[in-house]
Amino acid sequence: MAVGLHDFPNIPEIKGVRIGVAEAGIKKPNKKDLVVFELCEGASVTGVFTQNAFCAAPVRICQKHLGKSASRYLLINTGNANAGTGQLGLDDALRACQVLADQADTAIESILPFSTGVIGEPLPVDKIISAIPSALNNLSADNWYSAGVGIMTTDTLPKGSVRTFDFAGKQYTIAGVSKGAGMIRPNMATMLGYVFSDIAMSVDVLQSILKEVVNKSFNRITVDSDTSTNDSCIAVATGLAGNDEITSANEPLAQAFIQAFTEVMQELAHAIVRDGEGATKFVTVEVSGAAIEQDATKVAFEIAHSPLVKTALFASDPNWGRILAVVGRAGVEGLDVDAVQLHINGVEIARNGGLSPDYSEELGQAAMAPEEIHILVDLGVGNASDTVWTTDFSHEYVTINADYRT
Amino acid sequence: MAVGLHDFPNIPEIKGVRIGVAEAGIKKPNKKDLVVFELCEGASVTGVFTQNAFCAAPVRICQKHLGKSASRYLLINTGNANAGTGQLGLDDALRACQVLADQADTAIESILPFSTGVIGEPLPVDKIISAIPSALNNLSADNWYSAGVGIMTTDTLPKGSVRTFDFAGKQYTIAGVSKGAGMIRPNMATMLGYVFSDIAMSVDVLQSILKEVVNKSFNRITVDSDTSTNDSCIAVATGLAGNDEITSANEPLAQAFIQAFTEVMQELAHAIVRDGEGATKFVTVEVSGAAIEQDATKVAFEIAHSPLVKTALFASDPNWGRILAVVGRAGVEGLDVDAVQLHINGVEIARNGGLSPDYSEELGQAAMAPEEIHILVDLGVGNASDTVWTTDFSHEYVTINADYRT
Repeated sequence: MAVGLHDFPNIPEIKGVRIGVAEAGIKKPNKKDLVVFELCEGASVTGVFTQNAFCAAPVRICQKHLGKSASRYLLINTGNANAGTGQLGLDDALRACQVLADQADTAIESILPFSTGVIGEPLPVDKIISAIPSALNNLSADNWYSAGVGIMTTDTLPKGSVRTFDFAGKQYTIAGVSKGAGMIRPNMATMLGYVFSDIAMSVDVLQSILKEVVNKSFNRITVDSDTSTNDSCIAVATGLAGNDEITSANEPLAQAFIQAFTEVMQELAHAIVRDGEGATKFVTVEVSGAAIEQDATKVAFEIAHSPLVKTALFASDPNWGRILAVVGRAGVEGLDVDAVQLHINGVEIARNGGLSPDYSEELGQAAMAPEEIHILVDLGVGNASDTVWTTDFSHEYVTINADYRT
Repeated sequence: MAVGLHDFPNIPEIKGVRIGVAEAGIKKPNKKDLVVFELCEGASVTGVFTQNAFCAAPVRICQKHLGKSASRYLLINTGNANAGTGQLGLDDALRACQVLADQADTAIESILPFSTGVIGEPLPVDKIISAIPSALNNLSADNWYSAGVGIMTTDTLPKGSVRTFDFAGKQYTIAGVSKGAGMIRPNMATMLGYVFSDIAMSVDVLQSILKEVVNKSFNRITVDSDTSTNDSCIAVATGLAGNDEITSANEPLAQAFIQAFTEVMQELAHAIVRDGEGATKFVTVEVSGAAIEQDATKVAFEIAHSPLVKTALFASDPNWGRILAVVGRAGVEGLDVDAVQLHINGVEIARNGGLSPDYSEELGQAAMAPEEIHILVDLGVGNASDTVWTTDFSHEYVTINADYRT
């Protein structure tokens, strides 16, 4: 049921990155569920992680390892989140890291572990350990599609994005994969996102760029308002493109990178929404005319989370009163309801807090019919704005989440 | 599909209150959709209303009229919320008030109007005006069941509650009706709630008691997190029971009243949850051990709103990891995940941030099987607590809200 999700792109080699994929049988047999990214020595690696206090064991270890040592391997399993698993979860994740470190002849601190899947069940770590040699044996520079497939849980399609850009006679590539369909309301990062470039860039600059761009991509999507325990987004700059290492985000090359990087990050974030659990619509919620950006962000997320708005979207029903009701309850200080305007896919629906004189039910129904919906709320009091992307709420969502563990 | 909702009670006469009901044909023909409550002269009347900035036209008028004059009539229609209707909505509501005032030979300020139903469509005020004589013609002291039916929208059953108590040789009665099933996350009041007593009590005392009790009843229920534009809860003390007027909430009679009043208010609030759209479970979410009550309230509401928790409840699936994930993202300052404990229907599920050693999947499934679910989260850091009541999230909810206007 994914909405307007493009085929997985043809991703070229990114110098310094190799990918190995294996079937560990973690939740189901005959499914790619273990992915290893191998990074060259000297790569800049940074990440942002869930702010859920119940963050998963691998998230805690990642955060520790990132600061301690040069990262060389990302070890990702699906089928089990290793969250809510206490000390046993930490021990299990470290054991898998140690096995990979031994076989790759590196230190345990250079392994970054990631898990996604059911929360609260012990990690079947022996299955993972058994499959590590197989993943290492098929390390290759062109395993991107398999990587996209290998990190899926309730996703129906793999998600990838790639951009190349030229600068001063050199070509640079940025590519990544993401996964996620439910428990999507990232806060600092998404379920899992990995973006790689061959550019040379200091880890500090990469970190600052990642933090900024994540706030306009993964941190602005929501399927069901539930922030995961395992959200992780990793950015890697291998440094093999041949440029002098970027040490400031203000350099012209850094600016060119940010533009392409933002496109990749947004495409990966949007792909999660397009493949959101039970999604039949891809919905852009833009709030403009706010006094401050936080008001715009808050109103946009409240609209995106409202079960009544989401079920109306599912029904292609121009039930615009539900949208105004959300604006009214969102807690915007000094809201002037008479200044609020609402457009859906370019059709003016509401003006001055009431129905637009030009509105007709036919116009409203036509505006709500497409798969891609753009809701624009103008609060009419200032110049701040923000945009959030989300899905509708369908029977399929209930089916998926009522049956998830069976 | 209502969960454990008792039959409408046998409500005796409350001296000073008469009820008239009519069929105005507002949304559908042959349905009781207009209710008039007539109050005796001298009754204390107070109310609490939605905090949605897009509050409906009748809510604005109610708030204005309540302060201006002695209230004599409540005029309630279903089928149309008269919200998001701008100046026309105000004019329409006032026109209906004026017609009732003329026919009842009273001032327009003594009429309190209420509407509930679809948001954003013009009020069919002529239909209401045409039906007012019929409602006045059947004013009677025992029309309680008809009143419960006459204020329903997507409710499947009428909701009423009654308590009597004796004090110093006199008997007092408190009774009320409520409605609501969707767009339920009251903030100051519920969709519509009306509670009447024959007690004599100053309007100031009645107002302070209503505000306090609403925070432990209507303001602690949620079906779908959406605060309505029309929430109104009215309390009336007709003063015909014969006691000296209560002028302080500390009087012993006031304390006896508060106890019975709280029972009525909670029963009416719970009835809305039990009849929540698509509900198959009645869920009590209790959060204890919080540092401050606001933390307990916040965590309880976040659990009650989580689509993933609600779909797991629908499936009777002890997917406790989803509950802990909500606790972790709820934004409690200084949350100690290792101190958190979780019980469901008395079964210890989680301890020290992980699975309880005594837990088994069989125990979890047995705990989740009943229609009535009690989720207890102990944050383990303090003595503050709060309780919220909610429902699960079923296919029926999506069906009801995707088809609401058709």
